[in-house]
Amino acid sequence: MAVAQPLAGVTVLDFGQVYNGPYCGFLLAQAGARVIKVESPKGETLRGRGDPNSVSQPFAMLNGGKECITLNIKSEQGQQLLKQLVMHVDVLVENFSPGTLAEYGIGSEDLRALNPRLIYAASTGYGSSGPHRDYLGMDITLQAMSGIMSVTGVDDGPPMKAGVALCDFLGGVHLYAGITSALYQREQTGLGAVLDISMQDCVFPTLTTQLGAFFASGKQGPRTGNRQAGLSTAPYNVYRARDGHVAMICIREGHWRNLCAAMQQPDLAADPRFAKASLRTKNMDELDATIEAWTCQHDKAEIFAVAQRHGVICAPVQDLHDVVNDQHLHARGSLHWHEQESLGNTVLFSTPLRFKDSEPPPPQSVAGLGAHSAEVLAEFLNLSAPDVDKLRAAGTI
Amino acid sequence: MAVAQPLAGVTVLDFGQVYNGPYCGFLLAQAGARVIKVESPKGETLRGRGDPNSVSQPFAMLNGGKECITLNIKSEQGQQLLKQLVMHVDVLVENFSPGTLAEYGIGSEDLRALNPRLIYAASTGYGSSGPHRDYLGMDITLQAMSGIMSVTGVDDGPPMKAGVALCDFLGGVHLYAGITSALYQREQTGLGAVLDISMQDCVFPTLTTQLGAFFASGKQGPRTGNRQAGLSTAPYNVYRARDGHVAMICIREGHWRNLCAAMQQPDLAADPRFAKASLRTKNMDELDATIEAWTCQHDKAEIFAVAQRHGVICAPVQDLHDVVNDQHLHARGSLHWHEQESLGNTVLFSTPLRFKDSEPPPPQSVAGLGAHSAEVLAEFLNLSAPDVDKLRAAGTI
Repeated sequence: MAVAQPLAGVTVLDFGQVYNGPYCGFLLAQAGARVIKVESPKGETLRGRGDPNSVSQPFAMLNGGKECITLNIKSEQGQQLLKQLVMHVDVLVENFSPGTLAEYGIGSEDLRALNPRLIYAASTGYGSSGPHRDYLGMDITLQAMSGIMSVTGVDDGPPMKAGVALCDFLGGVHLYAGITSALYQREQTGLGAVLDISMQDCVFPTLTTQLGAFFASGKQGPRTGNRQAGLSTAPYNVYRARDGHVAMICIREGHWRNLCAAMQQPDLAADPRFAKASLRTKNMDELDATIEAWTCQHDKAEIFAVAQRHGVICAPVQDLHDVVNDQHLHARGSLHWHEQESLGNTVLFSTPLRFKDSEPPPPQSVAGLGAHSAEVLAEFLNLSAPDVDKLRAAGTI
Repeated sequence: MAVAQPLAGVTVLDFGQVYNGPYCGFLLAQAGARVIKVESPKGETLRGRGDPNSVSQPFAMLNGGKECITLNIKSEQGQQLLKQLVMHVDVLVENFSPGTLAEYGIGSEDLRALNPRLIYAASTGYGSSGPHRDYLGMDITLQAMSGIMSVTGVDDGPPMKAGVALCDFLGGVHLYAGITSALYQREQTGLGAVLDISMQDCVFPTLTTQLGAFFASGKQGPRTGNRQAGLSTAPYNVYRARDGHVAMICIREGHWRNLCAAMQQPDLAADPRFAKASLRTKNMDELDATIEAWTCQHDKAEIFAVAQRHGVICAPVQDLHDVVNDQHLHARGSLHWHEQESLGNTVLFSTPLRFKDSEPPPPQSVAGLGAHSAEVLAEFLNLSAPDVDKLRAAGTI
C-alpha cells in the first residue's frame, strides 16, 4: 500500500494564526506538502505568547514540520516579496481579519492575477459575503452566534460554551478539505481557486439533532445537560463512578439487555418500567438512578471494561492526564512523546487523516522564528545572503 | 472564476449512517460527485426514525442530492452485487462498526483487490488499530473519552458534554478531507487508498488551549464555564443582556479601549484595576460585573450592533429560532428554506466548502428509499427490470 504522503510536491505559504489556519497548515504538512509558515517579524501571537524566543505548547502542536519565514506585509517591500513568492507556490492559507491582505494590495484577486494556478484559501468568522462579512469572529463569539451555547449546559443555568475550540478546528479542517478539493479540480482544469470558508457555516451542521427536535415540535426544548438533546433516548447520560464518571448510551434493545447483563441484573431488562424504549424514556429518572446505583460502586475503568465485554457503548470521562497518556492513542501512533526545545518532553499529535496499515509521519519540532527565511528567499527568489541581511535590517523580514 | 464543482466525474457509494458518514457523503455530493447512498432494504435508522416512508429533518439535512439504492449486504447475493458495483465507483464511504464489511467478505482488502483505484473510506470511533479498535463509539462516549467533558461546564458541577454532535461532524469532515487527499494522490499514482479515520483522533486537537495550560502547570485547572480555559484572558465571558445573553472577548489592548468606548465609559480604560491585561485578569470578577452592569440594560441585538461599530468582538447568544432565521446565513446562501415532502417548509444548509463569488449548489430533496435502485443496477450492471424485481422479491435490495 502506498505510504500516506498524498500531497507530496505541493508547496504552501501558510499565513495561519492561532488555531484555524495553522491546523489547516498542519494537516497539509503531515499530508506531505511543503508548508512555509509566514510570520510577521515579531512572530505569530501564539508562538511564545509574547516571547518570540520561546515556544508555547499550542504553537508546538500545530506548527511542527513547517519551514518558518518572516515577512512584514505592511511594508511595500514585503508586499513585493510576497508577489514574487506566490509565483512559486500552489496554495496560500490565511485566516486574517476579513480583507486584510486585499487592503495591502495582495488579496486573492491581486495574487491570482499573478498566478492563475494559485489556490487562495481564506477562512474567517463569517465568510466574505453577506451582511456580517466584515465582523470579527473568535471561537467564543461563534459558539454564541451559531446556537451551540443555547444547547449546551443545564436548563436552570446560563447558556454554556463547549469547553473546546470546536469552531476554530472545524474551520481549519474544512479549509484543508476545500484546498484538497481545489487541488483535485486543478488537475482537471489547470486553474486555482479562491476559498471562502466561514467558521459559522462549518459549525451549523453540528446542530442537526437539535434542529430535528426543533422542527418537529416547532420550538426549542430545554437544555438537557448530559442527556440526549431531545430527551428521546435512554439510557443516555453521564453517571457517577467511584472515582469519577462514565458516559453510557443504549441505542437498540440489545444494548439495554447487554447493560442489564453487565450490571448482573438480567431481570431488569424485562422490568415493566424499562421493558421498551418508550418506557425507558418515560421513566428516565428512575432508570438513571438504577444505573447510577450500580456505577457508583465501581471504578470507571472497571465499568468501562465490563461494559465493553458485554457490548455496551460506554467510556470513562477522561481528564487531560488520562487523555495525553491514553494507551490506545499512543499505540495507534496518534499521540507521541516529543522533546521540544523550551518545552521539554511533551505530547504532540499526528494527523487524523490516517491511511490503513501505514504510520503517519512522526511529529516534528517547531522551527525558530524566521529560521528558513534566508534559505527560502535564496531558493525561490535567488536572493543572496547580503540581500537577506538588508531585508532584515529594513524590518521587511 | 470556475464554478465550484471540484469533484465532477467522481462516483461514490455512500454506506454512511446517522451523521458521520452521511455528512461526508453530503460534502461529496455538494462538491459535484455523484453520490449513491446505499441503505439496507429497511432504510437507514435516521431516515424516518423507524418509518421508511417518512423523512426526518436530520436525514433531510444530510442526504439531499444523493441517489438512493438498497442492498442487503448480509445476503450472499447482496455481497456479490456490491463486488460488481465497486468496479464502477471511485470511492466507498462507510461508518459501520469496526470490521462489519470485512466479516461479510467485502472489506477494504476484498474490494481493493477487485478495484485497485478504489478509495475505501472508513470512519469508526477509535480507528482500526490499537487496543480499542473494536470498541463502539458514539458522540457522547467519545466526548467522555476524548477529554471534552472534563473541560466543559462549571467547576462545581459534573463534567458536561458539548450540546452538539461535534465528534460525529469532525469525523465526517476529516473523512471527506482524507478522500479528497486520496483522490489528488490517485491522479499522480493511479492507485486508491484505504482511509482509517478515528473520531477520537479528530477530536483531540480541539483541546489545544487546555493542553497548553496543562503542560505549563503540570495539572488540569478547574472547569471555567464561559470564561477562558486557562483564566488568562479577560474580558472573555457570556454576559446577561435585557433579553438574553451576549458573548464578548478582548484580545488586544485596543479591543478593551473599544469596549470602554462602546459602553460610553472611555475613562474605564485607564481605571487602575483594568489598565492592562494582567490587571484585568487579576480583577476578572469586578471586570465582568462592570461589563454586565452595562449589558443587562440593553437588548442583545443592540449590544451586538454597538460592539461591532466599535470594533469589539461580540455576538448575541442565538437560540435555534434565531439561527435558522439568521439573515446573514440566508443572504450568503448558506441556509435555504426548502419544501421537503413529509416535512413541509424547512431549513437546509449548503456545503461550508465555499468558493468565492460562486453560489453553492442549492439544497435538494431527499430521494425515497431505493428510489434509484433499478436505474443504478441497469446502468452499472445491465440488469433488466425483471432482474431487479427478482432481487427485490428475494430481499436482496
